[in-house]
Amino acid sequence: MLQIPGEVPPGPGHARGGRGVTDWVRQVDVADLGLPVDVPSTALFTDQYELTMLQAALKAGTAERRSVFEVFTRRLPDGRRYGVVAGTGRVLDAIENFRFDAAVLAFLRERGIVDEVTLDWLDQYRFSGDVWGYPEGEVYFPGSPIMRVEGSFAECVLLETVILSILNHDSAIAAAASRMSSAAGGRPLIEMGARRTHELAAVAASRAAYVGGFATTSDLAAGFRYGIPTVGTSAHAFTLLHDTERGAFRAQVDSLGRGTTLLVDTYDVTEAVRTAVEVAGPELGAVRIDSGDLLLVAHRVRRQLDELGATGTRIIVTSDLDEYAIASLAAAPVDAYGVGTQLVTGSGHPTASMVYKLVARAESSDPQAPLVAVAKKSTGGKTSVGGRKWAARRPDAQGVAEAEVVGTGPVPAALADHQLLVQLVKGGEVVAREPLDVVRDRHAAARARLPLSATQLSRGEPVIPTEYVHAPSGSQEVPGAAGRRPLPRGPQSL
Amino acid sequence: MLQIPGEVPPGPGHARGGRGVTDWVRQVDVADLGLPVDVPSTALFTDQYELTMLQAALKAGTAERRSVFEVFTRRLPDGRRYGVVAGTGRVLDAIENFRFDAAVLAFLRERGIVDEVTLDWLDQYRFSGDVWGYPEGEVYFPGSPIMRVEGSFAECVLLETVILSILNHDSAIAAAASRMSSAAGGRPLIEMGARRTHELAAVAASRAAYVGGFATTSDLAAGFRYGIPTVGTSAHAFTLLHDTERGAFRAQVDSLGRGTTLLVDTYDVTEAVRTAVEVAGPELGAVRIDSGDLLLVAHRVRRQLDELGATGTRIIVTSDLDEYAIASLAAAPVDAYGVGTQLVTGSGHPTASMVYKLVARAESSDPQAPLVAVAKKSTGGKTSVGGRKWAARRPDAQGVAEAEVVGTGPVPAALADHQLLVQLVKGGEVVAREPLDVVRDRHAAARARLPLSATQLSRGEPVIPTEYVHAPSGSQEVPGAAGRRPLPRGPQSL
Repeated sequence: MLQIPGEVPPGPGHARGGRGVTDWVRQVDVADLGLPVDVPSTALFTDQYELTMLQAALKAGTAERRSVFEVFTRRLPDGRRYGVVAGTGRVLDAIENFRFDAAVLAFLRERGIVDEVTLDWLDQYRFSGDVWGYPEGEVYFPGSPIMRVEGSFAECVLLETVILSILNHDSAIAAAASRMSSAAGGRPLIEMGARRTHELAAVAASRAAYVGGFATTSDLAAGFRYGIPTVGTSAHAFTLLHDTERGAFRAQVDSLGRGTTLLVDTYDVTEAVRTAVEVAGPELGAVRIDSGDLLLVAHRVRRQLDELGATGTRIIVTSDLDEYAIASLAAAPVDAYGVGTQLVTGSGHPTASMVYKLVARAESSDPQAPLVAVAKKSTGGKTSVGGRKWAARRPDAQGVAEAEVVGTGPVPAALADHQLLVQLVKGGEVVAREPLDVVRDRHAAARARLPLSATQLSRGEPVIPTEYVHAPSGSQEVPGAAGRRPLPRGPQSL
Repeated sequence: MLQIPGEVPPGPGHARGGRGVTDWVRQVDVADLGLPVDVPSTALFTDQYELTMLQAALKAGTAERRSVFEVFTRRLPDGRRYGVVAGTGRVLDAIENFRFDAAVLAFLRERGIVDEVTLDWLDQYRFSGDVWGYPEGEVYFPGSPIMRVEGSFAECVLLETVILSILNHDSAIAAAASRMSSAAGGRPLIEMGARRTHELAAVAASRAAYVGGFATTSDLAAGFRYGIPTVGTSAHAFTLLHDTERGAFRAQVDSLGRGTTLLVDTYDVTEAVRTAVEVAGPELGAVRIDSGDLLLVAHRVRRQLDELGATGTRIIVTSDLDEYAIASLAAAPVDAYGVGTQLVTGSGHPTASMVYKLVARAESSDPQAPLVAVAKKSTGGKTSVGGRKWAARRPDAQGVAEAEVVGTGPVPAALADHQLLVQLVKGGEVVAREPLDVVRDRHAAARARLPLSATQLSRGEPVIPTEYVHAPSGSQEVPGAAGRRPLPRGPQSL
């Protein structure tokens, strides 16, 4: 039964009924489901060169140099006004579980991928550095230092692939979800794209969609893993299984109650709506329309439902919707949108283009050695800005964001209270877990503080510019102890 | 170290050295890695409506009607000439592991998703029907019955989401990979897109890329899980970690040998190539170029390498390549291509549009009841062809495919030897597991039998038309026993 959010959920287990969306999973043992939950190791989600670079650095004596890597993107997807940080919570799980167990080490040895010295080092691996980042749900712009990973080169370089996989996927989905939820106004959005993407990417996509403003998902794994409210309607197969459409509707109502959602476009919509109300009565919960000219059909069905006295029966539309189709239905009598393909494929942009770059490293392995800014310099458009960065979003007098300010060196006093990075991992310990509802609310708030044109669907430039503030030349930071000390949230020098 | 396929692999564990790509994983205990391997359950990769339809059908007494579901697509992605079936092996794993364990049942009960009768039924669930399908690696066209699932409505309807997730994702990647491997001619392709997609989708993407003709992957999880040969080069971070580029190259060569691949575009390419050959000697394995005008730079680097006597040093290019960029480098002195983003996002088409539709079902729950063809009939473009189908690819006199013939009823004698569907699951038991190399070879052979224009990169219609042959009216099949009997590969009536 499709339960439209905002109403009282029917059963005791409906997570929106008070417990918050991340609580349920804690009650059961989930390790045996093959879901990416509490996995003993995420260490194989790694490109081979990370291990061979480690081996070479170990031999060269450079592996222990204190290093700063940053995640950022050089550009937003073409035409997009803002990006949405999503996946941070999954990154924290991945870092915590990043271990090389016996089977992985045996594989690396057998394949001859790295030498014994490196295998011994990996056997002891546990990330012990610091991670700062934009809190999940925040918006971002070109150059925003979305995540900053600090520690020895060796311990940080290994995390490149898994961090990027998670952030690039989840942020792409969340950005599409955010545009769709803007377009939908207050109407609820249902994520139903599991069948259009990898079965585990689907679970992460549901999570990212929720962050971006979706209300529910059809994916049971996402309900299980993340406590996202789940919903369901009915498929054409169910109608076709039965001898008549009336028989199918009766079977569904008998079992699932009058509050259920009947699918009315298997044969003739008008006849189906009439039959649906005859079978379920005017208390029928909702009808779903999955094909045809949705604008036209929704108007016709609404009129028919009202004439039949089913004024409270809602209309749910599904059928290859994207943010543009959703917006085009704003004036139609639609109560909820189900979105599949376009959501899980990022509505034309299935990946964010985030990269993970070394931006500063110590001059030697001495824990007291100062950091020096580094950056790729060759021509070809892939240059980066070196140095460990802070970021702040400068508001105008009305509190509306007017610039993303990214800098090295001291943070200007006027921006001190508007900084974006928060500490996520401190000395290897995750310090910033939070419920998904908090993340979702943060996204809504961050988007609301952008200029109004942020939510225009038309293609455009990033809605605020990124400004760079460079450190005074010669400024360097002398760390307390090899990248292990907690970084102050306040002013940070390079 | 990047090892270009076709050469003798260096270490004892290089899977191409004889054992085939699916053997390695059998030697180790993989269950504790959090990879989607041997998972006890895939049952949560399910949309909620499958369970609520089950509940309604159980109550209505229709759940046991023998049913035939088919996977097909109404169209190829815009402009594509053929599709590639990939993921079949993963579907078989998913079906085999599709069980509702205690934790899943507790979740469904707590959330009130289905009633106790349904929970009891799910507790006993084990697919006991038959699955036929195009063998993995085959090509497909609009309307091709890519997979056919037969059994009771109840047991088949539950598999919809997981089957579609796998086939839609993997086939989309394999189709892109196939175009890229055509474009690359005989030059090897390296899959390096893990960082651009969900961490587990990446593993499946590596597998699909291998099916589509890629030679290697950078993704260690894909090497571990599927035995795909893994390779690695070096990142800009490694060069930047060291005080000089020369120091970085020396460190890499000292540790990984002269056969390694040096990344030469961190600062100045010409200077880097000179330094690389000075450090490694003319025996240097390869250089990688990751930015700039690759055509121009590859020519310049080749000339420089040759002048330095490094005539055997290969050139590997990476940098947002797609099939068009690969084709444009056909005349350049490039030895291998590394492909990331565009591969794992399906080069513009990140999902296939396969659907899972009920095409026939029994008139009653009687195991002897005849099947009747069913299909959605409303307007709106989403109509289907009812009836259980066979498919054959008709060759012309030269053996080149000229039509995809899809039909119900008896198979014409002339097509009997050209049928495409093979049995994958028989009475619930998987009967068609095969090594990934067999699948990869099958794809190459199937593509080679298409008209030459199949591998043109320009947009076009499907390279062969789909023709429908309908069963004589009134023909029906009387099954032996409720969908459990093995289906003949030969002529099949509706």
